[in-house]
Amino acid sequence: MYTVYGMSSSGNCHKLRLLLDHLGLPFHWQEVDITTGASRQPDFLALNANGRVPVLQLDNGETLAESNAILCFLAEDTRLWPGPRLARARTLQWLFFEQYSHEPYIAVARYICGFLPPDHERRAELPKLHERGRQALAVMEQYLSGRQFFVEDRFGIADIALYAYTHAAADGGFRLEPYPSIRAWLDRVAGQRGHTPMARPPRLS
Amino acid sequence: MYTVYGMSSSGNCHKLRLLLDHLGLPFHWQEVDITTGASRQPDFLALNANGRVPVLQLDNGETLAESNAILCFLAEDTRLWPGPRLARARTLQWLFFEQYSHEPYIAVARYICGFLPPDHERRAELPKLHERGRQALAVMEQYLSGRQFFVEDRFGIADIALYAYTHAAADGGFRLEPYPSIRAWLDRVAGQRGHTPMARPPRLS
Repeated sequence: MYTVYGMSSSGNCHKLRLLLDHLGLPFHWQEVDITTGASRQPDFLALNANGRVPVLQLDNGETLAESNAILCFLAEDTRLWPGPRLARARTLQWLFFEQYSHEPYIAVARYICGFLPPDHERRAELPKLHERGRQALAVMEQYLSGRQFFVEDRFGIADIALYAYTHAAADGGFRLEPYPSIRAWLDRVAGQRGHTPMARPPRLS
Repeated sequence: MYTVYGMSSSGNCHKLRLLLDHLGLPFHWQEVDITTGASRQPDFLALNANGRVPVLQLDNGETLAESNAILCFLAEDTRLWPGPRLARARTLQWLFFEQYSHEPYIAVARYICGFLPPDHERRAELPKLHERGRQALAVMEQYLSGRQFFVEDRFGIADIALYAYTHAAADGGFRLEPYPSIRAWLDRVAGQRGHTPMARPPRLS
């Protein structure tokens, strides 16, 4: 059985729960509270020297880090991983888009608003994070216009990866009203059988 | 024949040239100068709505974005893409590490030092970029100790992706002296047959 080391209110970690639930794979969830520094302790660094959640541990003790790499590992040869070569590359394109152009703005804004005290100095970063995050949302909105899902027009791990922080963007102060195609896609993802809601950040729950 | 839209002095773009040369695949290189805003023009945004280089165009006109997704697409079923499932996931882990924990610090410091005027206000970002970049280098140094390459101890696309900006880290003000395992690995990568040097940034050439 897989063990997931993760924080339930983290979108990067919730991606794994979503996928494992969709695939009906049993797993043990080991909660790691990164807000208290647990992911910087020696026992955690032995699992992932980069000090980040989530980490997937296999039965043989091997560990794998990076949420989107873990999604690919788990989804391979399932209905949530496309067959054709270009569709697989297109999935990876959106996974890298998520980690480079989306998560560093939309997830970080949520972290500042949902996990730090309301008078924290990092709130000064919010205007820039909102500007960059809206650029990512605009790219998604344009692409989703006339499409049901991100790759091959059927539900897959690109949708799971992008859903994780997009559906919670309001936690970081984003408004989704200007993005009707994104909102319709979020409803389609949340309507998939086996969908699991994500835990709320401590300051917003 | 593939067409690559890229800037020769960009590490993300140079990754593609390295891989295509290693595989002996013919390609047409279309230079895009992002410093003059060429990647934000309508003709380029039609290739990649996210406005970033590189972009790979196939013979049938289809385009693919995100440097590391393109590496995976091109390397599939070649000697530079591992066979076993966990080794493929490990490759992806390092590709996501590169784009999330490495490139945003080491490549951005190089951009500020190598492409912007010496009195540019963004130089104020350098201390933070150096701190975070050194964290990424420390993770690599620890992992490479006793290893020849990143995955299965043989040269592959994880090495190509991480080489691109690591070998040019000095351009952004990083010192590689404290990282002997990284320096030995850089020499091994540069010593591969078919290796192509990267163009220098305009302010450092």
